[in-house]
Amino acid sequence: MEKIRVAVVGYGNIGKYAVSAVLAAKDMVLAGVVRREPDDDIGDIKVVTDIKELGTVDVALLCSPTRTIEEEAVKYLKMGINTVDSYDIHSTIYELKLMLEKVAKETGAVAVISAGWDPGSDSVVRALLEACAPKGITYTNFGPGMSMGHTVAVKAKEGVKNALSMTIPVGTSIHRRIVYVELNDGVNFSDVEKAIKQDPYFSSDETHVIQVSDVNEYIDKGHGVNMVRKGVSGQTDNQLFEFNMKINNPALTAQIMVSSARASKRQAPGAYTMIEIPMVDFLDMDKETAIRRLV
Amino acid sequence: MEKIRVAVVGYGNIGKYAVSAVLAAKDMVLAGVVRREPDDDIGDIKVVTDIKELGTVDVALLCSPTRTIEEEAVKYLKMGINTVDSYDIHSTIYELKLMLEKVAKETGAVAVISAGWDPGSDSVVRALLEACAPKGITYTNFGPGMSMGHTVAVKAKEGVKNALSMTIPVGTSIHRRIVYVELNDGVNFSDVEKAIKQDPYFSSDETHVIQVSDVNEYIDKGHGVNMVRKGVSGQTDNQLFEFNMKINNPALTAQIMVSSARASKRQAPGAYTMIEIPMVDFLDMDKETAIRRLV
Repeated sequence: MEKIRVAVVGYGNIGKYAVSAVLAAKDMVLAGVVRREPDDDIGDIKVVTDIKELGTVDVALLCSPTRTIEEEAVKYLKMGINTVDSYDIHSTIYELKLMLEKVAKETGAVAVISAGWDPGSDSVVRALLEACAPKGITYTNFGPGMSMGHTVAVKAKEGVKNALSMTIPVGTSIHRRIVYVELNDGVNFSDVEKAIKQDPYFSSDETHVIQVSDVNEYIDKGHGVNMVRKGVSGQTDNQLFEFNMKINNPALTAQIMVSSARASKRQAPGAYTMIEIPMVDFLDMDKETAIRRLV
Repeated sequence: MEKIRVAVVGYGNIGKYAVSAVLAAKDMVLAGVVRREPDDDIGDIKVVTDIKELGTVDVALLCSPTRTIEEEAVKYLKMGINTVDSYDIHSTIYELKLMLEKVAKETGAVAVISAGWDPGSDSVVRALLEACAPKGITYTNFGPGMSMGHTVAVKAKEGVKNALSMTIPVGTSIHRRIVYVELNDGVNFSDVEKAIKQDPYFSSDETHVIQVSDVNEYIDKGHGVNMVRKGVSGQTDNQLFEFNMKINNPALTAQIMVSSARASKRQAPGAYTMIEIPMVDFLDMDKETAIRRLV
């Protein structure tokens, strides 16, 4: 079997873990890393600004910020390169799919979109639980763990030098926010606290703001999910399901993107979310092995 | 949208719940029930011995014992009717797939096999967790709940009037067996206890045998699963995952078969386990709705 040649686009938090995960995948070769600005190679890993310098690339893992995903994906799909992203704006995933599907079909490429853990593996669990109990409510509870979006919102406040917003699950999809802030000299804590609590990102959640001298002391990449569904199978109530995980956040995102790179090679041209792809396609084993080991 | 016409084959424990689940599915119509022996209609549900008496049938839900599945499936697939089963002999699922695939492709039909909860929805979770953390160990812990296979093995022992074998999870895929037996008059309990403990079904597990006056007092259809995976995402260890459920056993099996009947109408001719089918295909909603609601 020829190995899948994978490029990692972006070398931030997820990109670094994506490099590790590609190197750990027996059926893949790391073609190199693509960055916006020229940079030194990383050990014997080639770093380039243009993917064409990497020779043949089968799949590009888009580890750049969510807001750049559409543009990046279109660029690579037009070159006939499959793409995988972990685009996480839930409300516009379907629009991204429609847009990328059109481009992918023109060049015979495949895009796997929103392939992280939420959206991503959690979406697969939510769909599975709907198949098991079509009537009922699923609660997705996040954390404890760092919320990137909320942290960025706090960092933008006047007087804030550094920040960390933790998401704390309190059950039934309700979350508490605990915000650690490091302030510039002479800034009044109460003013910052008030500004944070009035921000739309925080105003509907129970929010606590704590001033600390060094935010970096509090940062860890662990995160968690607790999903609960109570529903009805056929006409039988009280069917109870629960999915939990405690994970290194960028490591899991990167692994799911790598598994999705493999899956992209097994789909017809188009754009797919994870719930549109058979689970067996994500695995580095043939169907017979997967069925004998896992079914 | 034309509704899917479904027949329920067999009217035992699972068959009864399958009838309920088909009636609860808005995109399906219950064509009727097929039994081996002639029987009265059930309310306004037609009961027949030959599926041809039910008019057009799109999908047959095979709710008969596992040992009869292959023969039943072949019969209906040859008639061009899709089949769904919850065949549960893990070691021969792949052989069943190969056999039914051949027949299904000849007539353009689809078989969804081993579509219960284990094998079935648990298999999907096992595959998903391998995609999230390819290295590591998954433990599947069953119960507390009744084991059909073990119960049948005990009932076959000399002197046993009725029996119930409960599976109790003790973690890391190890199980305790607690067997409730009702004995015929004059039978020595110690002899029966010894025979059970020596049976290959029980000899490698911690087994307790308890004599009771009426086994039926102890039977409930609840069952449970606790699946645990600790593994490696990329090169990051200690990624922790857990899936739990506490469910009415035949109700869940029947619902998954009904969801699989729907999925069968969306696959190319052939035979499929659940890990070979995209999750979205099991749901009574279009792709856009599923992606907006669940991804």
